[in-house]
Amino acid sequence: MTEHLYTETALREFTRQVFLAMGCPAGDAELAADVLLQADLTGVDSHGVARLSGYVRLWEKERINPRPQITVVHETPTTATIDGDRGLGLVVAPFAMNLAIEKARTYGSGWVSVKNSNHFGIAGYHSLMAVRQDMIGLSMTNASPLVAPTYSNERLLGTNPICYAFPAGKHAPVVVDMATAAAANGKLEIAQRTGTKIPEGWVQDKDGRISTDPNELKSGGALLPLGSDKAHGSHKGYGLGAAVDIFSAVLSGANYGPWVPPFVAFLEPPADPVGAGIGHFLGAMRVDGFRQVDEYKQHMDNWIDRFSSSTTVDPDKKVIIPGQPEREAETERRANGIPLVVAVANDLHALADRLGLARLT
Amino acid sequence: MTEHLYTETALREFTRQVFLAMGCPAGDAELAADVLLQADLTGVDSHGVARLSGYVRLWEKERINPRPQITVVHETPTTATIDGDRGLGLVVAPFAMNLAIEKARTYGSGWVSVKNSNHFGIAGYHSLMAVRQDMIGLSMTNASPLVAPTYSNERLLGTNPICYAFPAGKHAPVVVDMATAAAANGKLEIAQRTGTKIPEGWVQDKDGRISTDPNELKSGGALLPLGSDKAHGSHKGYGLGAAVDIFSAVLSGANYGPWVPPFVAFLEPPADPVGAGIGHFLGAMRVDGFRQVDEYKQHMDNWIDRFSSSTTVDPDKKVIIPGQPEREAETERRANGIPLVVAVANDLHALADRLGLARLT
Repeated sequence: MTEHLYTETALREFTRQVFLAMGCPAGDAELAADVLLQADLTGVDSHGVARLSGYVRLWEKERINPRPQITVVHETPTTATIDGDRGLGLVVAPFAMNLAIEKARTYGSGWVSVKNSNHFGIAGYHSLMAVRQDMIGLSMTNASPLVAPTYSNERLLGTNPICYAFPAGKHAPVVVDMATAAAANGKLEIAQRTGTKIPEGWVQDKDGRISTDPNELKSGGALLPLGSDKAHGSHKGYGLGAAVDIFSAVLSGANYGPWVPPFVAFLEPPADPVGAGIGHFLGAMRVDGFRQVDEYKQHMDNWIDRFSSSTTVDPDKKVIIPGQPEREAETERRANGIPLVVAVANDLHALADRLGLARLT
Repeated sequence: MTEHLYTETALREFTRQVFLAMGCPAGDAELAADVLLQADLTGVDSHGVARLSGYVRLWEKERINPRPQITVVHETPTTATIDGDRGLGLVVAPFAMNLAIEKARTYGSGWVSVKNSNHFGIAGYHSLMAVRQDMIGLSMTNASPLVAPTYSNERLLGTNPICYAFPAGKHAPVVVDMATAAAANGKLEIAQRTGTKIPEGWVQDKDGRISTDPNELKSGGALLPLGSDKAHGSHKGYGLGAAVDIFSAVLSGANYGPWVPPFVAFLEPPADPVGAGIGHFLGAMRVDGFRQVDEYKQHMDNWIDRFSSSTTVDPDKKVIIPGQPEREAETERRANGIPLVVAVANDLHALADRLGLARLT
């Protein structure tokens, strides 16, 4: 695939200009750009500027409010529910995480459920906000229904990611950031572009039959939960996705299951919503609520050292510490630039023209 | 497999007598028996009385303290770490969950990490304690290393279960209770007894090669994380197991990774421990910390109704609501008795003889 390299600065500024053109306040535009850039910098290309025109289209349909009044609608010392007022999830989720961190600072932990929001970008961004305060961060969100529960041929759950981030000492944080489906939609899109088959266990066709066709989702098929089939534990992946849906939406008052509004603007949200927008759930726990921070970090480093030095089946491969591939990508891309495939760059050029902005160079 | 049926009452009383013979106080013996019986009643046969002689052997080796002084060693309003004093996890974990519930009652949420404990039985028991208070319950534990991380041929993680339990209204609670391995060890034991092969994706041999031999674990092989291989997301199962290990042990001061002491008494714990005993992590959050309980329950019921009535690939199979199979087993077994395979019944008879107790009838 042909790619062009862009500097972080250029991409960040372009993204900020797009959010400003949508009418976002300056601080929100900068924050939203930061969340998207963090995805592009860390190699999670599916969740960065590749989605920028998607957000714009939702704004054009008035499904994203660029100037939301985010409000706390329910609260205890360590819990809260906030109404995102149809704001960008890229802005609403950090607001919620800041509230969780504030509660944790006073009481040891803080938990915030969110309704009436939109796609919040990479989950890891939000969890890492807590890590910078020597807290463990948790973030999750529900999403447009694409995944069929075990035995079903209906798409009832999103890829519903869950992210735990743990501070470390001399090492970088451990960041477990995962969709609860066997494979993310982004991997299917790559196979669609390159015209290659996908492994069995990623998707099923509209009748629930095994398929290796990456286009299956376009003709009524579904992604499979982590585990792929019952014999390999797909009921566990389905259970995790269900837990994310309940925390994010049943608890907050957002839409859940098949009622979650689609991210793509050309599909209308269900006519019979059971809540408001999509939902997230964010949390923070102070490490020193459990143990001296130094002691914890020394053991976290020891854990990382032991796992990363473990023997492997293939001597050319090392055991990966969760979060490590993203950090390695970040080092490389900060130094050398961020590659965008031509289709994405062209999409951004079209977006610039539509909004009357200077094209990305 | 030949089985005999026993009444709940007989099995509970026998189990209680065994814990009393170990020297447990009366209340602890009753509680520990209740945790094990809950597993047998709900069909989780691997975690019920089948393990009773295992606990006794650990006690005989003085690795379980029947009269622990459980203490809170670190605390904030909503977090705490407790030292289980080598007590039965069956007793230590409910102690920790009661503390989490108490904190949640006052502050909205409560989180307790536990060190110096032992095997805590089924995770679902502890999470459901919170559900009875209209709280969401979370429980997890690390365990003897049996699982190899993606790419590794070393056993570095336990099957590290995680359980989320959510209250519902007219319906029973939703209980997601899952090992983070592709298949639990209990399934391998069944295949060993019946001499059948297991599906690819459950285990690897000592060199990390794919195997369908259920005996592989006895010759240096390992269980695989949920997802089975990298293409199907085994790094996600590994990441989840890692998160459980960090919450349970790096945070509490218990042993983690390959240092977790084995459950079987014939294997000695590592000579260079990095902490004390095994670790757990328990939490409770008040539903009304986020939303009116009635409103939440109405939507939880709607969620359950929608998922359980979804269309399926095979019309003979329904979409399972997490926790439902266990509840169905409980109804059936309370009515008809609890089946024990002959090997387990014989093990209990030998245990009775050794401890000078009346045999189970």
